[in-house]
Amino acid sequence: MNDKSKKPQKLKARLPRGFVDRSAADIRAVNEMTGKIREVYERYGFDPVETPLFEYTDALGKFLPDADRPNEGVFSLQDDDDQWMSLRYDLTAPLARHVAENFQDIQLPYRTYRAGYVFRNEKPGPGRFRQFMQFDADTVGAAGVQADAEMCMMMADTLEALGIKRGDYVIRVNNRKVLDGVLEAIGLGGEDKAGQRLNVLRAIDKLDKFGPEGVKLLLGPGRKDESGDFTKGAGLDGDQIAKVLFFVGIKDYAESAEALAELVAGTSKGGEGVEELNMIGALVTGAGYASDRVKIDPSVVRGLEYYTGPVYEAELLFDVTNEKGEKVVFGSVGGGGRYDGLVSRFMGQPVPATGFSIGVSRLMTALKNLGKLGQDQVIAPVLITVMDGDAESMGRYQRFTQDLRAAGIRAEMYQGNWKKFGNQLKYADRRDCPIAIIQGGDERAQGMVQIKDLIEGKRLAGEIEDNATWREARVAQEIVSEAELVAKVREILEAQAEDRRRAV
Amino acid sequence: MNDKSKKPQKLKARLPRGFVDRSAADIRAVNEMTGKIREVYERYGFDPVETPLFEYTDALGKFLPDADRPNEGVFSLQDDDDQWMSLRYDLTAPLARHVAENFQDIQLPYRTYRAGYVFRNEKPGPGRFRQFMQFDADTVGAAGVQADAEMCMMMADTLEALGIKRGDYVIRVNNRKVLDGVLEAIGLGGEDKAGQRLNVLRAIDKLDKFGPEGVKLLLGPGRKDESGDFTKGAGLDGDQIAKVLFFVGIKDYAESAEALAELVAGTSKGGEGVEELNMIGALVTGAGYASDRVKIDPSVVRGLEYYTGPVYEAELLFDVTNEKGEKVVFGSVGGGGRYDGLVSRFMGQPVPATGFSIGVSRLMTALKNLGKLGQDQVIAPVLITVMDGDAESMGRYQRFTQDLRAAGIRAEMYQGNWKKFGNQLKYADRRDCPIAIIQGGDERAQGMVQIKDLIEGKRLAGEIEDNATWREARVAQEIVSEAELVAKVREILEAQAEDRRRAV
Repeated sequence: MNDKSKKPQKLKARLPRGFVDRSAADIRAVNEMTGKIREVYERYGFDPVETPLFEYTDALGKFLPDADRPNEGVFSLQDDDDQWMSLRYDLTAPLARHVAENFQDIQLPYRTYRAGYVFRNEKPGPGRFRQFMQFDADTVGAAGVQADAEMCMMMADTLEALGIKRGDYVIRVNNRKVLDGVLEAIGLGGEDKAGQRLNVLRAIDKLDKFGPEGVKLLLGPGRKDESGDFTKGAGLDGDQIAKVLFFVGIKDYAESAEALAELVAGTSKGGEGVEELNMIGALVTGAGYASDRVKIDPSVVRGLEYYTGPVYEAELLFDVTNEKGEKVVFGSVGGGGRYDGLVSRFMGQPVPATGFSIGVSRLMTALKNLGKLGQDQVIAPVLITVMDGDAESMGRYQRFTQDLRAAGIRAEMYQGNWKKFGNQLKYADRRDCPIAIIQGGDERAQGMVQIKDLIEGKRLAGEIEDNATWREARVAQEIVSEAELVAKVREILEAQAEDRRRAV
Repeated sequence: MNDKSKKPQKLKARLPRGFVDRSAADIRAVNEMTGKIREVYERYGFDPVETPLFEYTDALGKFLPDADRPNEGVFSLQDDDDQWMSLRYDLTAPLARHVAENFQDIQLPYRTYRAGYVFRNEKPGPGRFRQFMQFDADTVGAAGVQADAEMCMMMADTLEALGIKRGDYVIRVNNRKVLDGVLEAIGLGGEDKAGQRLNVLRAIDKLDKFGPEGVKLLLGPGRKDESGDFTKGAGLDGDQIAKVLFFVGIKDYAESAEALAELVAGTSKGGEGVEELNMIGALVTGAGYASDRVKIDPSVVRGLEYYTGPVYEAELLFDVTNEKGEKVVFGSVGGGGRYDGLVSRFMGQPVPATGFSIGVSRLMTALKNLGKLGQDQVIAPVLITVMDGDAESMGRYQRFTQDLRAAGIRAEMYQGNWKKFGNQLKYADRRDCPIAIIQGGDERAQGMVQIKDLIEGKRLAGEIEDNATWREARVAQEIVSEAELVAKVREILEAQAEDRRRAV
């Protein structure tokens, strides 16, 4: 007989690759953070709107490379009417679909925000997840760059509302039209040069990583890295490279604006782009946002293909230690730009739009680094222990619990196997319960109840170091009448809160 | 030449079947509601935890009926390593996976809550969506029914925290063991009777719909509905039917408990189930929850297969008018029960658990019916209109806007085509802006600004009926210096708020 085949096979509990469970601390931190972001966006006059997680695949603007495997980059499946649906990979394409579908009912300019999960069907890696949260704001139906300027100021205000000091962040702005103008000026205009243009953009995007010398090689013959791997360059000549490097190297836009205008003079949209940058500069300065908050910076590229005008990026400037132990600038926590073509794809008419997207986890990591999220302020519940399991005793424990809750105090009755009392105190300890309530038979007969101050207990036992100003020890354990329970618990919780305040 | 083929084909913007976009009012209402639910759950000592939207299909406990089409009921797709993944169809199965996977690190009893989207791959219909939100709370590692009793009290407290009056809701409790005991007592025990048992459960579940007479037919030979369609019955005889109907017809549990205990005497788990019901009754009564809040009611069945003990349901008792114009009891907004087998599937040991799930949209509909969601309290932004588009003027408009925002006032500068001034006022009107700010060239030269009270303007024009106590008209339009702008706007907004309070 084969015993193994008779035993029901045990399922293996495992997260799908590239996905994570979220802890209480992370959830509370994200809620606190998104609450503050929402407050700023509401103050700016934006309203929430949300789309579902699925869209028809064609609406996302991805091609189906292969009818049997339309999963490249996105998660897709075929509905029972044979239409392909995909999980959204950002919040912009679904918004474009929403606007186009409800165009008759929507009052333009349409100013909305949304937070939600997006999905990438990519090879998971350390810190690279296949589901993550974005927080977007968009203005649809606004052709003027005042809408872009507003986005940049809103991002600056958002970062400050989250506790990031002025000087620790900057919103950097560029314009795709200027970039295209520079490329056209060096002879890379026209459809047939699209591939070479893309190589130049990729090279520029590496400025942070390789510096001007590295980018120079990537723009020219190519670059060999430390491991000996060779990346083929964009093949520009010295004069072309000099012009590109001048452009991306501009540190003080005001100083270089004239030279830049000259460089792109005569190109189809370069001049328009420079004017737009100048206008954004004037608007943010007029509203009191100096270049320590919103800065015009021609090195900003932004990868996405659909941008058509201003592009912007929120960068955190303080240093953090990376996994290799090196100090690095924290870097980008979000960005966006103008995407005048995205809604128009569905429509017979042009619909200009601009928007900004925050990477929620990345921003949360930054705020944690700065100690700007108060996720530790949630106090664990008061634990009402169980000494006797008969209905009468248990009903009484339950009543204590409900009385505390009714008074707004976080409380729970022990729900595990009450017969091992040691486990109850171990539970209270692991869960960081501030107080334990105990009532045995004798106490019950007298209508009394024992209250243990577990924090003070630990302090007296020397298990926690006391950073607070010296104070006399509290009574770590006392017996009060049932009627006094709630008041006494509140008194102890307040004393503990006072200790925490002193310890800061 | 074929012109049509040259024209790029216009994409059709359409929501996938069975999915919806969510409006600002709905999002704000859900946020307000889930915030209040969260508050109650936190007070009960529960902490948040969340899982991703995907699970491996086997972890959800669904079978793959066909390797080519594992989409029955759930949305599934195959990962690039050939493993099948599915979007979660509830929040319970993923929690079971999470607990089993992290069992060594989790302190039991594990008390958590979560809100999130779940997905059903079903034929969409009116009011039936394929993505919707659930809000769950679960206690894992608690074998005693005190954990179930707590769930019921927590649900009662939650409904009251949401503004539902005592008497307008009830939490009904039953026990699967008692139900199974009754079935065993009438000879329907054992594996081979599983099909017939299921038919009996389905018949009982129709009690609300068809009444005892209808259920009697469904338990017996079968039932013909008005259209003439015949539903085959469970084939019970008169004595069996009488016992089932006695059980589900129990109105006053205390009165019938003894007869019930007699009925299930000698069955494998019936007696245990009655004891558990009695214990729940004692605990909730002990904690002050009378049967107007938590009521033992043997007609509660709950469809899900995985329940193993107490089951409970939150029912709203007030009448609403349905789509046919009939008055009907609002009914269930959530439910749950004990699922001792769900975590154990992954483990070599038993892991008892119990939990409750709220249907968020349904509860929101109920609260809207009761006027208990204050989603109208969000005031639209003050609109700063644009009269001149040069950088200097626009910078000044932008500064007014930022000054108002910095003072905590919701404000926006008009972002559409400013050249048609009429459109700006139309926008303010459609968006319900409370105030418009206007500054033309002359005013700018004098450092003055015009403030229009749009609400008062409408009132004076007779467009809105005035429910407020009679009062003298405010000035609907005035001119102040730029320095006075913020103070004046605040004054008008406060006067408008006072009007709204009076109008209630």
